[in-house]
Amino acid sequence: MTVHYFTASTLDGFLATHDDSLDWLLSRNVDADGPHGYNAFLAGMGALVMGGVTYRWVVEHEQGRWPYAQPTWLFSRSTTELLPGADLHQVAGDPTTHIDAIRASAGGRDVWLVGGGDLAAQFARAGLIDEVWIQFAPVILGSGKPFMPAPLDLTLLEVVRNGDFACTHYAVTPSPSDGFGSRQRA
Amino acid sequence: MTVHYFTASTLDGFLATHDDSLDWLLSRNVDADGPHGYNAFLAGMGALVMGGVTYRWVVEHEQGRWPYAQPTWLFSRSTTELLPGADLHQVAGDPTTHIDAIRASAGGRDVWLVGGGDLAAQFARAGLIDEVWIQFAPVILGSGKPFMPAPLDLTLLEVVRNGDFACTHYAVTPSPSDGFGSRQRA
Repeated sequence: MTVHYFTASTLDGFLATHDDSLDWLLSRNVDADGPHGYNAFLAGMGALVMGGVTYRWVVEHEQGRWPYAQPTWLFSRSTTELLPGADLHQVAGDPTTHIDAIRASAGGRDVWLVGGGDLAAQFARAGLIDEVWIQFAPVILGSGKPFMPAPLDLTLLEVVRNGDFACTHYAVTPSPSDGFGSRQRA
Repeated sequence: MTVHYFTASTLDGFLATHDDSLDWLLSRNVDADGPHGYNAFLAGMGALVMGGVTYRWVVEHEQGRWPYAQPTWLFSRSTTELLPGADLHQVAGDPTTHIDAIRASAGGRDVWLVGGGDLAAQFARAGLIDEVWIQFAPVILGSGKPFMPAPLDLTLLEVVRNGDFACTHYAVTPSPSDGFGSRQRA
């Protein structure tokens, strides 16, 4: 049960402007059924994980229709109105505390860490990310919200073009302190 | 006479740590004669442009041997000891003031904007960059010196793998205010 951080990014590592605009992203062409496409990726996911800003963005952007059938783990300390009909589990604190329940809820499929960047960094620091997929949009913003404000060492698996995007896929490189066993898949 | 910004970067858009370490870069595998490789790129360049930090890094890293035959334009306000035997031109201020002399010095070949990020941003804001090449190393630093702290809209030309790197090549998208003529090549 692999945990994937699958995200779009600007070429300078931002996933949103400071005011959470995604105009830089939504104006670009991509084939959701093409290489590294969203549709096949999402179909392989058994559970989702996201932070509060991402959650509220989805609710607003989808105009109240929750787009995911999978159980979704919402990491947020603030009181959040949970959308009726969505399989939402609100939690807070150290991701390590919740990872077993998250994995169990995925029913043998994988886990998609949706974002945002701060939650991704928490998962990275806890050693809980196995693979990283970044779809780079052809734009430099100069500033914004970083997709991962934490260090992570990776191994390139594949790079491919999809529409306007340079799509990359990485495995997280085990750090020496991990030992050999801790990142082995079950 | 195209101006190219050709640079390596981390996946989160940094070209050095805050203390100017490039260990994240120099520990990775790349074929300088492979796709988007350094050797063929450099051979096509008639002039180089770099900032003071980059210049001092090259001097230190190359242990006093200047590695470039091309005229090199050093943008730096500080008093800089120029390496004997190198074809160095120290200038300062608005790149627009110097671009004609830089192009003329390239003898019909192209111009390589080496970096760093702040100088690249000045060139970008002045509309002086034609193409951007970024070789992404398989690492996220979390913080560091950005390769371009200024916005720039691009069009993807090609993405290809070279060793550990995801190599991308972009044309700068003319902004509406440019008109149609300003970015036409001579």
